[in-house]
Amino acid sequence: MKHSFKNDYSEMVHPKILESFAAIGNSQFEGYGLDEFSDDAALLIRAKINKPDADIHFISGGTHANLVVISSALRPHEAVIAVKSGHIFVHETGAIEATGHKICTCEGSGGKLCVSDIKSVLDEHAGDEHMVKPRLVYVSLSTECGTVYTKDELSAISEFCHANDLYLYIDGARLGAALNSFACDLEYSDIADFADAFFIGGTKNGALFGEAIVICNNTLKNDFRFLLKQRGGLMAKTAAIGVQFKTLFTDNLYDELALYANNCAQKLAEGIKKLGYSFLYPAQTNLIIPVFPAAVAEKLHVSHGFYDWQSIESNIAARLLTSWATPGDKIDEFLADLAKL
Amino acid sequence: MKHSFKNDYSEMVHPKILESFAAIGNSQFEGYGLDEFSDDAALLIRAKINKPDADIHFISGGTHANLVVISSALRPHEAVIAVKSGHIFVHETGAIEATGHKICTCEGSGGKLCVSDIKSVLDEHAGDEHMVKPRLVYVSLSTECGTVYTKDELSAISEFCHANDLYLYIDGARLGAALNSFACDLEYSDIADFADAFFIGGTKNGALFGEAIVICNNTLKNDFRFLLKQRGGLMAKTAAIGVQFKTLFTDNLYDELALYANNCAQKLAEGIKKLGYSFLYPAQTNLIIPVFPAAVAEKLHVSHGFYDWQSIESNIAARLLTSWATPGDKIDEFLADLAKL
Amino acid sequence: MKHSFKNDYSEMVHPKILESFAAIGNSQFEGYGLDEFSDDAALLIRAKINKPDADIHFISGGTHANLVVISSALRPHEAVIAVKSGHIFVHETGAIEATGHKICTCEGSGGKLCVSDIKSVLDEHAGDEHMVKPRLVYVSLSTECGTVYTKDELSAISEFCHANDLYLYIDGARLGAALNSFACDLEYSDIADFADAFFIGGTKNGALFGEAIVICNNTLKNDFRFLLKQRGGLMAKTAAIGVQFKTLFTDNLYDELALYANNCAQKLAEGIKKLGYSFLYPAQTNLIIPVFPAAVAEKLHVSHGFYDWQSIESNIAARLLTSWATPGDKIDEFLADLAKL
Amino acid sequence: MKHSFKNDYSEMVHPKILESFAAIGNSQFEGYGLDEFSDDAALLIRAKINKPDADIHFISGGTHANLVVISSALRPHEAVIAVKSGHIFVHETGAIEATGHKICTCEGSGGKLCVSDIKSVLDEHAGDEHMVKPRLVYVSLSTECGTVYTKDELSAISEFCHANDLYLYIDGARLGAALNSFACDLEYSDIADFADAFFIGGTKNGALFGEAIVICNNTLKNDFRFLLKQRGGLMAKTAAIGVQFKTLFTDNLYDELALYANNCAQKLAEGIKKLGYSFLYPAQTNLIIPVFPAAVAEKLHVSHGFYDWQSIESNIAARLLTSWATPGDKIDEFLADLAKL
Repeated sequence: MKHSFKNDYSEMVHPKILESFAAIGNSQFEGYGLDEFSDDAALLIRAKINKPDADIHFISGGTHANLVVISSALRPHEAVIAVKSGHIFVHETGAIEATGHKICTCEGSGGKLCVSDIKSVLDEHAGDEHMVKPRLVYVSLSTECGTVYTKDELSAISEFCHANDLYLYIDGARLGAALNSFACDLEYSDIADFADAFFIGGTKNGALFGEAIVICNNTLKNDFRFLLKQRGGLMAKTAAIGVQFKTLFTDNLYDELALYANNCAQKLAEGIKKLGYSFLYPAQTNLIIPVFPAAVAEKLHVSHGFYDWQSIESNIAARLLTSWATPGDKIDEFLADLAKL
Repeated sequence: MKHSFKNDYSEMVHPKILESFAAIGNSQFEGYGLDEFSDDAALLIRAKINKPDADIHFISGGTHANLVVISSALRPHEAVIAVKSGHIFVHETGAIEATGHKICTCEGSGGKLCVSDIKSVLDEHAGDEHMVKPRLVYVSLSTECGTVYTKDELSAISEFCHANDLYLYIDGARLGAALNSFACDLEYSDIADFADAFFIGGTKNGALFGEAIVICNNTLKNDFRFLLKQRGGLMAKTAAIGVQFKTLFTDNLYDELALYANNCAQKLAEGIKKLGYSFLYPAQTNLIIPVFPAAVAEKLHVSHGFYDWQSIESNIAARLLTSWATPGDKIDEFLADLAKL
Repeated sequence: MKHSFKNDYSEMVHPKILESFAAIGNSQFEGYGLDEFSDDAALLIRAKINKPDADIHFISGGTHANLVVISSALRPHEAVIAVKSGHIFVHETGAIEATGHKICTCEGSGGKLCVSDIKSVLDEHAGDEHMVKPRLVYVSLSTECGTVYTKDELSAISEFCHANDLYLYIDGARLGAALNSFACDLEYSDIADFADAFFIGGTKNGALFGEAIVICNNTLKNDFRFLLKQRGGLMAKTAAIGVQFKTLFTDNLYDELALYANNCAQKLAEGIKKLGYSFLYPAQTNLIIPVFPAAVAEKLHVSHGFYDWQSIESNIAARLLTSWATPGDKIDEFLADLAKL
Repeated sequence: MKHSFKNDYSEMVHPKILESFAAIGNSQFEGYGLDEFSDDAALLIRAKINKPDADIHFISGGTHANLVVISSALRPHEAVIAVKSGHIFVHETGAIEATGHKICTCEGSGGKLCVSDIKSVLDEHAGDEHMVKPRLVYVSLSTECGTVYTKDELSAISEFCHANDLYLYIDGARLGAALNSFACDLEYSDIADFADAFFIGGTKNGALFGEAIVICNNTLKNDFRFLLKQRGGLMAKTAAIGVQFKTLFTDNLYDELALYANNCAQKLAEGIKKLGYSFLYPAQTNLIIPVFPAAVAEKLHVSHGFYDWQSIESNIAARLLTSWATPGDKIDEFLADLAKL
């Protein structure tokens, strides 16, 4: 079977997590996240992000995290600001709108928002009651385009948000990839300082499933477990996610896996570059988007799995992902095949 | 630590499931339930329920299953009929109402609805556009009270529903316990024949997490994956649930685990009965509700974990659950302690 | 044609209101409630309720008022407490649930809630995140049963609500009838003191249409016009309601019309009582519910329009309403016909 | 006071409508649209649109009509296609999203959609369950820019919609202006033939308030009154709107008023053109958008009320509306003042 570079969730689970499950055996625990594994995991995460009073909640997936956090934060007439390529706007089947909230978009650049983007949306709305009231800024880190924000960029956004009564929420489905990118000077503690809420993705970084929602702003902490339960997100066996995050945040496993995935992608990117191809966006994380002539892309599809992200005249921007489990020789094979074309 | 009879989801996961995960290693699979494990699991379930054309979807939890199925089936003005003790009415933080739909309740008996209950609700509404339009009947099997429907009872409800343009939806969080109860003459295939949709609970029967939604009615099949995604229920690693259901429905493991839990509860119930105590509802599955004098209940709490379900004058109706992992000696200990009081 | 006692909105509009419209001619005004008529009406209402800082918003109907105010006040997991016969629970087609909120009901008595009813609901929920969080108490004045609260009763409810972080909202579709009832010692200013928000009904007291929402609690004032617009309640020609309320609250017309309707009903009630019939609830306002033998009710239907409210064995509880426009001789005719039976 | 060209709902009501109300006096009618006035109005409308089996419902305003019809037609994952300047996307405070549905936008041109716009949205979505499913096309007639569709244009849209399982819904807040435009060859019966549902605006064409929803597609007729009630749109005194539409559709009053308003705007437009100014969009109805140098616009504001629609470099696109009640001399004054600048 040909290797798939389609996603970073194509392999089941890191062996250390399975070992953790096995070690528990049939010992009993409390339901709904009140167990010791979830407690331990929360402590480890709070230490990692240097935010002792952050609230941590575990949930099964990213779309679910997004919709619970956002709908919990907003009054009915309040809206989200996001970049046009944002996951919540494009690829979550209207999950945010289904909770009643409009997403106001701006162009952004390379999957990223900047302060002037946000400011334009505010200016367009300007307190007019015939329009929604933008109240929360949604940012992905890393972005849908595989890019990262720098500390200066995110700090400016955060400052602007808080000066303008906007919440800043970060979709961290690939937070590990971002914070372990050579292009990113952000630390975990910066994220916790800048954002009102964010989530740390497990699904795309070695977990069987699960994400950790982190709430930093006290206002947003209030009654969050009610909201989680109401939207179907409070699992009876939340402990099953707790165990995983406990494992991922022990001995730096989370960063190790993300860094491995990034390194695979960088090796791939450098090889592609050497062969003379360019990239649609800077190759900064485990998701890279090289541009190939359509004929080349077509031939690559024969032996390698990946998505065509965009057609640009006679070229294809190809989306390639690596993961914590990508075998090194698959990268070599890809580059070798590409070199032949 | 004292043993907990509080829930049937207090132990992590059956070892065979862990073995299945281990056997997969790092081999790759498709995302969002389009993987071979989910396919295999669906085939096994379809065979078990004798419904080759049923649609099977995997989701992480029961509340989530309930809200996705119900909101997918109804137009905005349509409502649910449920018994007052129904999980969706009492213990899901208004999850159904949060999707816009009212739940019309009836008293029922022992956690069960009957045809005349449903009929009363229809009569009260009678097509009046100033009231909601009841459109879906929600039934739990086994119920919140640990009771089961007989084939005659469920068949009558199903017939009435379909004669009155009502969908019948069965919450099967504990379907294994029900179908493996001595008091229940229903088969899996009956459930599929009687219900328009139902789910088969994994979380409470040995899975790490996960439920299998089964859609039998063609109308309800349409676009269901959109709905699943929109509500945050379509997991990238749906395969992780697929593997589990494949394991549970291989070599009859699902029934074996449920039967074991039931047998534990029956042993407990018989012991309690012999000691002269009665039950709030017939003890038919792995959830039983004996009635103890408050002083007895209080002393039992010292060494055994369980919930007080209800105060009845000077008595306590105590909710006790056994699981696929309940150690036999814990039952003996409970009965021995009870005998001493 | 036989006279209808079915409703108090069966006649079009009080002539003084038509005169007010005629007097305006084609002079221009601002849209969306920013006109001088709405301003004048708001001033008159604020004076009447002795609440100079109350926010006043005009909306076309009562169900609409209820759903906008309630959905504006609550977070997604928060719920309403109402009596079982409450209009929002029975006769608004699930309008509140359609905005995502559950209604927790209690029995009440004669259409009225008391503190212990509310307390029971709180005790049942008790901060459990698996259940909704009751946050707003809904009270009708007068009630669906035509009854009124006394000042002591409503004061106790208000005090309990505010001590328990509950909003008190009053549906005043028939507020005029209530405050002009011999049985009610409440003043307009009491309503404004006790309630966080309420509405003053125009539709059922001589207006062509329209209700005045009054918001007393500052928290609830915030961004209310956004909510009003979002739910379709901010009319371009809000001025058309402003003119009506200006007229109704000039020279005491609102009270005059309500008192007239009440007096008609009292005359009817006394006549019925003299003929030996009893009432299902105390006859206190313009809605009365006498109990007739079924055969009597049937004969009355021949010449008089009214609804059968309830069957009680061989009797019919008949709902009779009078309005600002009920002709006196129609009451005499009804009583004469009844005397013959 | 300076004359306002801001809106076509700045004057209260046409005198003939007041006369109709006066003629009714205190005679009684049924509630909730089951009255004879609403019946008569519906008959007149059905005759006008040549659709004897259309369902007609009256509602108080346009935003309300839009949200009730659209939310009634769609399943939760289904979305609307609209042009970016569409009223529902920009100026209804997220009313459609508040009912759970996303609006997919396209650029359009002059406030108008064309088939290729719609096709692009379909192509982008292409049945992918990670995206919403476009299901209803929203068109305004006349548009926010004052433009109209031709019969060929609307016919093509309608054909495309029905070939692609899309509903076509027309916001007819200014349908009178459109159908009485020199630039529009559409008849009322064409609208009813092309659209699955639409509404005929009263608020902006002489009514005190109120719109007539027309449902042509049988699927959409089902249970519509439930939906209307649930969203707060079923007025007890629907008769008050019935009377108005009966009057408007008697002796051609509706068209007469719209034509008058159009003629006023055309006179204004021709005058402006003669003075050498151009228009942002073709001046086709009672809403025209001439472009003035900013300094000119500023001076015009001194004596004439209108909105600045858009800044274009050193120019202002000014939005001017005329109505059924615009005095002819106000147009002369405007043109005279403009000539002086």
